[in-house]
Amino acid sequence: MADSSAPTRVMMAVNESSLKGYPHPSISCRTAFDWTLSKLVRSNPGGFHFLFLHIQVPDEDGFDDIDSIYASPDDFHQMKQRDKIRGLHLLEYFVNQCHQLGIKCEAWIRHGDPKEVICNEVKRVQPDLLVVGSRGLGPFQRVFVGTVSEFCVKHAECPVITIKRKATEAPQDPVDD
Amino acid sequence: MADSSAPTRVMMAVNESSLKGYPHPSISCRTAFDWTLSKLVRSNPGGFHFLFLHIQVPDEDGFDDIDSIYASPDDFHQMKQRDKIRGLHLLEYFVNQCHQLGIKCEAWIRHGDPKEVICNEVKRVQPDLLVVGSRGLGPFQRVFVGTVSEFCVKHAECPVITIKRKATEAPQDPVDD
Repeated sequence: MADSSAPTRVMMAVNESSLKGYPHPSISCRTAFDWTLSKLVRSNPGGFHFLFLHIQVPDEDGFDDIDSIYASPDDFHQMKQRDKIRGLHLLEYFVNQCHQLGIKCEAWIRHGDPKEVICNEVKRVQPDLLVVGSRGLGPFQRVFVGTVSEFCVKHAECPVITIKRKATEAPQDPVDD
Repeated sequence: MADSSAPTRVMMAVNESSLKGYPHPSISCRTAFDWTLSKLVRSNPGGFHFLFLHIQVPDEDGFDDIDSIYASPDDFHQMKQRDKIRGLHLLEYFVNQCHQLGIKCEAWIRHGDPKEVICNEVKRVQPDLLVVGSRGLGPFQRVFVGTVSEFCVKHAECPVITIKRKATEAPQDPVDD
C-alpha cells in the first residue's frame, strides 16, 4: 500500500475562543485539531495537507468596539484592519504547528455566516474531508444557538467528521467555547 | 512524529445491500470503507485497527422468509442459523480486505435497532472513531426512513465521520442501498 497518491486534503474551520478572544483558538477547534493530528495523521505527515479556514462574522451590533470613537471613515477602515490582523494571529497558531510537524498547509479568512461559508468553500476547494469541532450541546441548547457542525454534516459536499469537546474541557456555560 | 502510540481504533457499521441482499455490502458502507482506506489509512496500515459491526434487525414481519414453511421449533432455529451465516459472509468481505492490506481487525454481529446498537457498542468498545456511511437522502426522504448516521453524529460518544454515497452510485430509488 504505497502512499503514491496525492495527500489527503483536510479542511478545518477554526474560530477564536469566545471566552479568551483572539488570538486564542476555541476549545472545540483546538480539540479537533489535536485529535486529527494524533489519530489520523499519526506518523504520516506527508500524507496530509491541511486547509485552515477562519470565518469572521460581521459584527452587526458593534458590541466589540462599543468603547471606540469613530470620527472619520479611516476609523472604520482601521477597525477592519485590526480584525483582519487578529484573524491572522489565530491562523498563525495552526500554521506554526503544521510547520513544526512537517505537514503542508494553507490558511485563509472569509466573512459571513460560518455554516454557509464553510459549505461554499467546500464546494469551491473540494477537500477530501471536512473536520468540524462541536461544543456537544444538548437539544435544548441547540435550539437557541444552532450548530454549525449539524448543518455541515447535512450540506457539505464531502465527508465530514464531527469531534466534540471533552466534557471535562467544557466551560461553566456550555455555550461558551 | 513517531507512530509509537496504539493504533487508531476505527469502528465501522456495515450492512448488506438492500437490492442484492447478503453477502453483498450496501453501496454506502462499501463507499465508506474504500474512502477510509484510501484517504485515512493511506500507507500506514499498522497505524489503524478496524472494528466491523454488523447489526441484524429482527424481522418482525417475516417477509424475507414468506415462502418458507415452519413446522417445528427446529425450523425457526435453522432460520436464525441461516441469518447468522449470511451475516458472517458479509463480514468476511471486510475482514479479507483488511487481511490483504495488513490491517488488524475484528468483526462481530449484534441484533436490534441499528442506531441504538451502534451507540451502545461505541460506549462499550470505546473506539477512537466511528465511520458511518450515509445514503445522502434529502429532508423529504429522511422524514420517512430516518437516518442512522444523523442519530450517531448526535449521540455516539466518540468522533463520527459521515461519508455519503456518490450521486453517480445511487440506485434509482435513493432509499435503496
